[in-house]
Amino acid sequence: MYNVAAHMTAAMRVMSSLTLTLFFSIICCSLTEKLSNASSPNIIIMLMDDMGWGDLGVLGQPSKETPYLDAMAAQGMLFPNFYTANPLCSPSRAALLTGRLPVRNGFYTTNGHARNAYTPQEIVGGISKDEILLPQIMKKKGYVSKIVGKWHLGHRPQYLPLKNGFDEWFGAPDCHFGPYNSSIRPNIPVYNNSEMLGRYYEEFKIDRKTGESNLTQMYLLEGVDFIRRQTEAQRPFFLYWAPDATHAPVYASKPFLGQSQRGRYGDAVMELDYSVGHILLWLKRLGIENDTFVFFTSDNGAALTSGPNEAGSNGPFLCGKETTFEGGMREPAIAWWPGHIKAGTVNFQLASVMDLFPTSLALAGLSPPDDRALDGLDLTPVLLNHPHKQGNRPIFYYRGNELMAVRIGQYKAHYWTWSNSLEEFNKGINFCPGEEVPGVTTHDQKEHTLQPILFHLGRDPGEKFPISVSSHEYQKVLSRISPVVEQHKSTLVPGVPQLNMCDVAVMNWAPAGCEKLGKCLNVPKSQPWKCDWPH
Amino acid sequence: MYNVAAHMTAAMRVMSSLTLTLFFSIICCSLTEKLSNASSPNIIIMLMDDMGWGDLGVLGQPSKETPYLDAMAAQGMLFPNFYTANPLCSPSRAALLTGRLPVRNGFYTTNGHARNAYTPQEIVGGISKDEILLPQIMKKKGYVSKIVGKWHLGHRPQYLPLKNGFDEWFGAPDCHFGPYNSSIRPNIPVYNNSEMLGRYYEEFKIDRKTGESNLTQMYLLEGVDFIRRQTEAQRPFFLYWAPDATHAPVYASKPFLGQSQRGRYGDAVMELDYSVGHILLWLKRLGIENDTFVFFTSDNGAALTSGPNEAGSNGPFLCGKETTFEGGMREPAIAWWPGHIKAGTVNFQLASVMDLFPTSLALAGLSPPDDRALDGLDLTPVLLNHPHKQGNRPIFYYRGNELMAVRIGQYKAHYWTWSNSLEEFNKGINFCPGEEVPGVTTHDQKEHTLQPILFHLGRDPGEKFPISVSSHEYQKVLSRISPVVEQHKSTLVPGVPQLNMCDVAVMNWAPAGCEKLGKCLNVPKSQPWKCDWPH
Repeated sequence: MYNVAAHMTAAMRVMSSLTLTLFFSIICCSLTEKLSNASSPNIIIMLMDDMGWGDLGVLGQPSKETPYLDAMAAQGMLFPNFYTANPLCSPSRAALLTGRLPVRNGFYTTNGHARNAYTPQEIVGGISKDEILLPQIMKKKGYVSKIVGKWHLGHRPQYLPLKNGFDEWFGAPDCHFGPYNSSIRPNIPVYNNSEMLGRYYEEFKIDRKTGESNLTQMYLLEGVDFIRRQTEAQRPFFLYWAPDATHAPVYASKPFLGQSQRGRYGDAVMELDYSVGHILLWLKRLGIENDTFVFFTSDNGAALTSGPNEAGSNGPFLCGKETTFEGGMREPAIAWWPGHIKAGTVNFQLASVMDLFPTSLALAGLSPPDDRALDGLDLTPVLLNHPHKQGNRPIFYYRGNELMAVRIGQYKAHYWTWSNSLEEFNKGINFCPGEEVPGVTTHDQKEHTLQPILFHLGRDPGEKFPISVSSHEYQKVLSRISPVVEQHKSTLVPGVPQLNMCDVAVMNWAPAGCEKLGKCLNVPKSQPWKCDWPH
Repeated sequence: MYNVAAHMTAAMRVMSSLTLTLFFSIICCSLTEKLSNASSPNIIIMLMDDMGWGDLGVLGQPSKETPYLDAMAAQGMLFPNFYTANPLCSPSRAALLTGRLPVRNGFYTTNGHARNAYTPQEIVGGISKDEILLPQIMKKKGYVSKIVGKWHLGHRPQYLPLKNGFDEWFGAPDCHFGPYNSSIRPNIPVYNNSEMLGRYYEEFKIDRKTGESNLTQMYLLEGVDFIRRQTEAQRPFFLYWAPDATHAPVYASKPFLGQSQRGRYGDAVMELDYSVGHILLWLKRLGIENDTFVFFTSDNGAALTSGPNEAGSNGPFLCGKETTFEGGMREPAIAWWPGHIKAGTVNFQLASVMDLFPTSLALAGLSPPDDRALDGLDLTPVLLNHPHKQGNRPIFYYRGNELMAVRIGQYKAHYWTWSNSLEEFNKGINFCPGEEVPGVTTHDQKEHTLQPILFHLGRDPGEKFPISVSSHEYQKVLSRISPVVEQHKSTLVPGVPQLNMCDVAVMNWAPAGCEKLGKCLNVPKSQPWKCDWPH
């Protein structure tokens, strides 16, 4: 409890100085001399949790409640064709930090065909020691790295952030969706660096009834505090800011609760929007906005099955989280770097969360590892306005171990379709509520490899009108896509799957630091089993 | 043919002066002295045809191809909660010009229950002589009025624009979707004021194969020419600019064809966007931008059944044209009036196309007629930033003679649901492609008056998650909505239905002016029948 209080006091100090600042006022004084290390700009990746493409005002949310993100887009570059690497949190995050598809970096399962897998606390695996994470390479140029928020690449000691390149961490290894009472399964711990500070629903409250929690405030303060410290020390930094307020159970702090037209989910979005705005304001206040590259995106599409109260919007796109339709994998994405990225641009480049790996390295003046296949592309030519440099790159839509679909240009070919099983669907788990495209949103795993279902995403972003197989267009396009897919498949070497085994003994019973807090729980006997991934 | 050529020459003159202007450059010289008649600003209503809420970049179209409309919103006021009065063209347009629901102004049918009706060329009826149209009242303050584009309030002589308050007209009385060959039914005439100039697919080409047509160019030139003439004459004007390029068969002129990521529909949107930008530029060029109120909207939701090639997008909303779901009736809407409307504002006021009637009158310093029920509200307090003046007004969703649904605040109650008949649906006419909300997108006319289906449009803009009937929220909200509906129904006096009778003899066989052109066709014998309205 002492640690939490000390931490919160530090945070409160930042807070009160924050409240002294008038938002969007012009601030001319900088706390430290401006870093003009153009070859090593600071890098901030803001990764939201289950936030959908359609949750931003600038992307058509009817409530238009994201003024700071909309301003960020107006000052930066918007990517309407930006994709995650997987429609689920853990693999998506592993892909971001490795620049590689989950099927390469091991964040998938072979327990079932085309199943989404992640890192619940009974998972045995985590990020493989053979993978190289972004902050590990950034170190070579003196970058100090911090993750704030959700990790989700494994919670056993060897998998935690400080063992994988990060210098600092404030957040949790797993999701906050439960358990809520440590009696049967341990509540998820919240870490400060390599030791736990407390647990969700204990020291770190989320009121399940009202949705009230100060976690986003804490993540904001932790981020700002880190930025200030590195700026004062004149060290280049990498901040991976990963709040999770928009993942069910969604939460917001008191000033935001009840403010949104959209209910509690909207409250959470408003607080995140405000926090993004606050971080950008601090960059300006510190005089480092021209030396800091900021990228905002989300880990996967909105979790429509939690709708309407705890789900976001995927705008005009089909289905949501867990699926390889556009709603599951197309993400809001904004790049911001005043003085470098032209304000108010919209870039239609097909881009991926995996691109943030080589792009960040390129910005830092570093080379990506040359001993492994990388799926990300360096976006700096696009960001710095050398168009068409990465013109014809494909987007691969994986679900677990299966390549479900491919996008090239405006065309998307589905090789497999599946929303979820009829059995699950009949229990009320619906990844496509109110949507049903015959032969597309199938409830059995349907193979189309001999005759893929083809959509033109320009004319038909909602994947509602398959292109006729007998058309000239279909034949022509497929002859362009097929060799790309064949090439990809024939050269792909899958990594060792890390998400196959589960065990109650590996749960967060006694995380490092629990002794000091008197919060260690008894570890049960090991009883490993093959994890069950229902969808 | 001579008339057409003369007309086109005048148009070309405007065109070449247009091309001299650099778009978005700052223009300081004005052709005439600036009108500073603040009490009688010019009024321009731009009404699109079948354009959907989601077709604008600022409202989330992924292709972001509407830079001029997005700029208009950034310089003006965006209304995300703006509605038409009917999900079909003719009644929507009649409502705009009368400020009254179609069920009052007669633009509905009693031939069937809850059927959409409009004015095909076999219709006998049109706008009733008992209705008072906006330009008729505007005359009292010296306004000169012109309609450019589609009229659709009846094509028989007594129903045409110059008989109903307009001083000028360039356009067609009916839709351009056929016939294509005058041999069996006459092709639709295009009028210049009170005489025909030619016919669609004859003098006024629309290439059905390529989609090429210069009509939007003509409508742009006609609009600009009118604005210039009135400005030079220092007369206040009302321009009702109603192009129809986004109605199937969609068309665009050569410079726009093939430019959009969205295919031909997107080409049409790009040309309309460009044209809107051009008109606003002309207002600036003429120095009358502070004296001209401009409102942009659409007549109904995107016609999804024409998708994907000839349909727009309704963004996150359910279904489209012909339905009383949000996709059928929520419209893109932007008000623009530099120096009066605060730039870059978003106003969540529930508003309606019928509001343009009393709003235009209020701006002109005129009173609406006091001898009849008006459904529109004066939006000037909202436009001029006196918020909450029109707080709790309901939105009524009619289909023909039936009140299908009501919105109050964020809540919408459906009293009847229907997309279209199963018989029609099985023929491939689908108003909700890829969407199916059980019990909501019904294929029979389903009555819910005893237990309306309730949605919260803030949490659930897509109408996917009905609020549980047993919830406290349901009971509470319904007790608020029910008296409003009862009051509306008990006091509503339906007008005489104008859209019941059809007759081949009334078609555009021999419109005024056909003699001079040698384009009169033989009028067949009158054989009236009750029009059949299938949905």
